[in-house]
Amino acid sequence: MTLEEIRARIDGIDRQLLPLLTERMDCSRQVAEVKRGTGESVFHPDRERDILKWAEAGAGEYADETRLVFASLLDASRAVQHRMLGSGKEIRDLVKAAPRSLPHGNRIACQGASGAYSHQAALRLFPGCRPDFHKSFGGVFRALETGAADFGLLPVENSFAGSVSEVYDLILKYRYFIVAATTVRVRHCLAVPRGADVARVKEIYSHPQALAQCSEFISSRGVRAVPYSNTAAAAEMAAEKGGNLAVICSEQAAEHFGLQILSRDIQNSRNNRTRFVAICREPAIPEDAQKISLCFSLPHTTGSLCGVLSRFAAGGLNLTKIESRPIADKNFEYDFYLDFTGNLREPRTLALIAALHDELPRFSFLGNYRELA
Amino acid sequence: MTLEEIRARIDGIDRQLLPLLTERMDCSRQVAEVKRGTGESVFHPDRERDILKWAEAGAGEYADETRLVFASLLDASRAVQHRMLGSGKEIRDLVKAAPRSLPHGNRIACQGASGAYSHQAALRLFPGCRPDFHKSFGGVFRALETGAADFGLLPVENSFAGSVSEVYDLILKYRYFIVAATTVRVRHCLAVPRGADVARVKEIYSHPQALAQCSEFISSRGVRAVPYSNTAAAAEMAAEKGGNLAVICSEQAAEHFGLQILSRDIQNSRNNRTRFVAICREPAIPEDAQKISLCFSLPHTTGSLCGVLSRFAAGGLNLTKIESRPIADKNFEYDFYLDFTGNLREPRTLALIAALHDELPRFSFLGNYRELA
Repeated sequence: MTLEEIRARIDGIDRQLLPLLTERMDCSRQVAEVKRGTGESVFHPDRERDILKWAEAGAGEYADETRLVFASLLDASRAVQHRMLGSGKEIRDLVKAAPRSLPHGNRIACQGASGAYSHQAALRLFPGCRPDFHKSFGGVFRALETGAADFGLLPVENSFAGSVSEVYDLILKYRYFIVAATTVRVRHCLAVPRGADVARVKEIYSHPQALAQCSEFISSRGVRAVPYSNTAAAAEMAAEKGGNLAVICSEQAAEHFGLQILSRDIQNSRNNRTRFVAICREPAIPEDAQKISLCFSLPHTTGSLCGVLSRFAAGGLNLTKIESRPIADKNFEYDFYLDFTGNLREPRTLALIAALHDELPRFSFLGNYRELA
Repeated sequence: MTLEEIRARIDGIDRQLLPLLTERMDCSRQVAEVKRGTGESVFHPDRERDILKWAEAGAGEYADETRLVFASLLDASRAVQHRMLGSGKEIRDLVKAAPRSLPHGNRIACQGASGAYSHQAALRLFPGCRPDFHKSFGGVFRALETGAADFGLLPVENSFAGSVSEVYDLILKYRYFIVAATTVRVRHCLAVPRGADVARVKEIYSHPQALAQCSEFISSRGVRAVPYSNTAAAAEMAAEKGGNLAVICSEQAAEHFGLQILSRDIQNSRNNRTRFVAICREPAIPEDAQKISLCFSLPHTTGSLCGVLSRFAAGGLNLTKIESRPIADKNFEYDFYLDFTGNLREPRTLALIAALHDELPRFSFLGNYRELA
């Protein structure tokens, strides 16, 4: 047979499959009607296991592939039922009540220091703001809690101080919401006090993380790296002390403290970016929100994650970030952090998130916000 | 209808679906035979798009769910074709040639310092070893390159110095392989020199990252945090200088330098772990390897990741880690880093990885190794 002939045969099979699939989903719809009365849950692990086993057993050499297709049939069936049942009242209420613009207020609590990359992020999200800087993530959350700040600004990816998970843990602990996000490119430069004798510079001061990120540059120069609390603080110190010393900091920090920039983009990797989010005590879903952040738990079977992702795919939502993290003291369960493109005021998107809200253990909606490029 | 009656109807539909699916996969098999002759590629995006569009259009209100099922049909079809064609010669050859035990040698290049968490990881993977410590990740790789070290030891998750991606970038750049892994729990303690007057301690020295991780403890004590290059180096300095100062370091570092431990587990989060991998110039796949690390690129459509994960699921492989990272200068593509349980000497596992090797852009096999608990 030629490729065209085989493909024609496949198309014929698909024409038989399609009405059967539609009929099967009509049945799922009827199942949902019955369950609406009885209050029975949508997910029946025993029944799903039986169906998969039966399909695998009858598929001969195609056991793996057949399991794959039947698993997606079960995903589709659950999706239909959730749609019928209008699951996820809690999240539907939240979306209905959420304001369509950010709350007023210009008091920004920021983790970092003046002139640091977090300062750049704050200015991009809240033009003209004058942030209060806090040493720890916890300090930012306490400023929100006491009402001293309207927004908190925190790094969540590729960050300098602390891991993503600590920030997410705190967001979940306080039950705050992400209301905006932006990404800042980390571009380190080498700077010296005005009038320094460059040939006599033997020491470079900076945050150990920045020193590590510029290790290739430093070792090629044969100078000594000296750790300092913060890149911007090192710049300030150099400006005050003067003399023949250098610092590694952002261009903004160097300019802010009047230093002379000797080299730009001296970090090892060009693709060095830090993503920042703005958080708020109350949820807000801006009219032009185009990003959704979620967190949920799953057992570490690939199939379960795949089942969830296939639902997002079917709903037309695009994944822009996924990260797993083992749950402490639970050996076979993982937390997943996901970002998707979408707006919860679109009914199809809301229906999907609402269904997953009811279906997944430890599901948390973190925010639906506008991400600035 | 009762639930039982509807389910009986569903079972009847499934009995019609199963032979159609088997027939469809027989067709895929024939397609593979034709393509073996012509050398045509397995993946035909245009044909797949046409099938999905047609299915969606004919599915009425079940468009989303039908798309989901047909996408998995296409995944299954590609899986069958790759299996028939024995794709991925390069990876099959690598597995065939890989030694079944780690190469001899006990020269370990380690990122960090004596007594640091990386030291603990090195001792766990290579009992009795005396690692050489390097300041930067690059230093570890150069030690391997020049033959000064047999193995390199690097943090890859929740790390103190630098991001995961920098280590992965270097592994890919040098084309080295992960040959072992372990996870160390990060437990900071507060320690002072013997004979210190605890009531008069006003300053705590440590790496800024460790200071940040213990910020709650520090602020509750009203003492000043002083950044130092490294937790273990701070412990050494305290032991040498003596007096009324404290350091934050690991228990091992405190004991190593003869300090007195005042408090244990003072970090904000209990779930603080760092995962380390041992890398090698040449691939080795130990007999008892049970973990596979991969990296590949995908466009940021949820469906494409889902298609890959469904193949892993169908192959019985369990995901233990997934992480996405945007690719520099490519706005809509992502690198994915995945860990799975499995051993490439199992034919089914090898067939799957070999197929993905041919199918996915920028696919890299990072290693198949034993992960110590």
